[in-house]
Amino acid sequence: MRVVDLADGVRRADPRILARALSVIERGGEPARDLLAALRTDGGAPHVIGITGPPGAGKSSLVEALGLLLNRSKGPVAVLAVDPSSPFSGGAILGDRVRMVRLAAAPGCFVRSMATRGALGGLAAAAADAVDVFAAAGFPVVLVETVGVGQDEVDVMHVADTVILTLPPGLGDDVQAAKAGIMEIAHLFAVSKADLPGADQAVAHLRAMVELAPPGPWRPPIVQVSVVAGEGLEELAEAVAEHARFLETEERRRGGRLDRAEHRIRRAVQDLAWRRLSAEHAGRLEAAIKAVGQGRKDPYTAAEELLRQLES
Amino acid sequence: MRVVDLADGVRRADPRILARALSVIERGGEPARDLLAALRTDGGAPHVIGITGPPGAGKSSLVEALGLLLNRSKGPVAVLAVDPSSPFSGGAILGDRVRMVRLAAAPGCFVRSMATRGALGGLAAAAADAVDVFAAAGFPVVLVETVGVGQDEVDVMHVADTVILTLPPGLGDDVQAAKAGIMEIAHLFAVSKADLPGADQAVAHLRAMVELAPPGPWRPPIVQVSVVAGEGLEELAEAVAEHARFLETEERRRGGRLDRAEHRIRRAVQDLAWRRLSAEHAGRLEAAIKAVGQGRKDPYTAAEELLRQLES
Repeated sequence: MRVVDLADGVRRADPRILARALSVIERGGEPARDLLAALRTDGGAPHVIGITGPPGAGKSSLVEALGLLLNRSKGPVAVLAVDPSSPFSGGAILGDRVRMVRLAAAPGCFVRSMATRGALGGLAAAAADAVDVFAAAGFPVVLVETVGVGQDEVDVMHVADTVILTLPPGLGDDVQAAKAGIMEIAHLFAVSKADLPGADQAVAHLRAMVELAPPGPWRPPIVQVSVVAGEGLEELAEAVAEHARFLETEERRRGGRLDRAEHRIRRAVQDLAWRRLSAEHAGRLEAAIKAVGQGRKDPYTAAEELLRQLES
Repeated sequence: MRVVDLADGVRRADPRILARALSVIERGGEPARDLLAALRTDGGAPHVIGITGPPGAGKSSLVEALGLLLNRSKGPVAVLAVDPSSPFSGGAILGDRVRMVRLAAAPGCFVRSMATRGALGGLAAAAADAVDVFAAAGFPVVLVETVGVGQDEVDVMHVADTVILTLPPGLGDDVQAAKAGIMEIAHLFAVSKADLPGADQAVAHLRAMVELAPPGPWRPPIVQVSVVAGEGLEELAEAVAEHARFLETEERRRGGRLDRAEHRIRRAVQDLAWRRLSAEHAGRLEAAIKAVGQGRKDPYTAAEELLRQLES
């Protein structure tokens, strides 16, 4: 299928063409870049909501429940479930996605998982590109879910306007330390499985943490949610809406968009610089690797010399 | 202190100058690069042993116990404790380091923690640079400990010849999924706190996993260790020595060194390309960020245009 036809189909939000377009994005490389270039429009930007949290927090059911709610109030919802864990163990996690059947069947809604990216740039870049595809298709709301940990997770969440961190009750200090990076970029905390013991304690724990953080214009609300008992979902949707309103003021949303654009350009420049060097100066690169590997040269001197080649 | 004097002091393994040199490395930037360039020698390469695992696995006590053992058989041991968790919660974890007092007091040994890096390149680059400093100081063994999760942790562990993954008993499937990336680069598994219930089960679990992995020339051994009971440490040290012997065959160690050199050069080239672009073409970069942020241009087209500027 030609790039223009693919782009047209995406703009019409044709679900089959959307699926093909996302596969092109997932594979990466030249075809993905061509598609993204063809998709540029002055179309509206969706509200991108990121949902993350440790395995076992019940993210998938929360995403589906929130998606169904937002579908009723805002229109078609797209879900991108991103799994940065390796293929070695990724299967079980991806299996969760097939459970999001109710949302996938809702009119105009679309559920997609993404686990690998063949090309350079990584999964976080692919997630950002996929959100561009959903934007071109006119979805007013895009939910991005990730089970990542550490920097991967933070990278994927960079795509979102609003980040929800989902935590199960009975959360120990260890988990908190491990999740530190993501805690700082979360706009909302959802304590899931609020029907289980320990939920109140988790909320108190989080509240103390939020109060310790340096004061800013936005104080992350903490919402207790139980998908099983059907509790707290409206409150969570309201908190999301409130954050959306916050973003609209003082051009905060635009600022966030510019930060994310810089992040994406940086990653693209860095990938491209390395690809060119590897392709056009392979011999010099090999010699540099040998010199650094044998301790005859430090990597920074080698990098300066190589970049000079690229610039000449 | 001049760079040549700093480099001289490092080569003499003067502990006070070593500490200053590591602070220079930690701060990064031009002084760090100058020091690394001055330190290049044809000196021997230490056996770099990485130790990682989730918080609560008892890594610090294991590192100290293993360090004391290796000190008796191999000579001076350097420890680098790397903490990629954010400053927001990093304090408690760093506090652990002060407990490594016995090893720090052993003759010729050196214990250092590293939590932040001001300059570009990140903590993983700083850890690799710090290992270069220890190599120049002639340490035969360097232990690198990290509490990182996900990609951070994998990045830091790239510095090591031998990677030990420490896991506590009572390890659930969730933790395994979360640690998938690191499982694949581990050469040895140490089930810590072997005196606690669940240790045998954890070993059985790991054994099943190792057997599922594609067969290779090295099959990761699984060792039960209890620092409290003083059990399994000799066995762990023997497994480490066996991996060192494995590396010496068929130039495997050299291959690993070249891979790591490539990794470091890549990171350095990418940082440098971005720094130059930001410094020398700030106006064009700002315009590109605006265009991508407003959806008028895709990040890959913007990257190509910007890199063309750098090359012209």
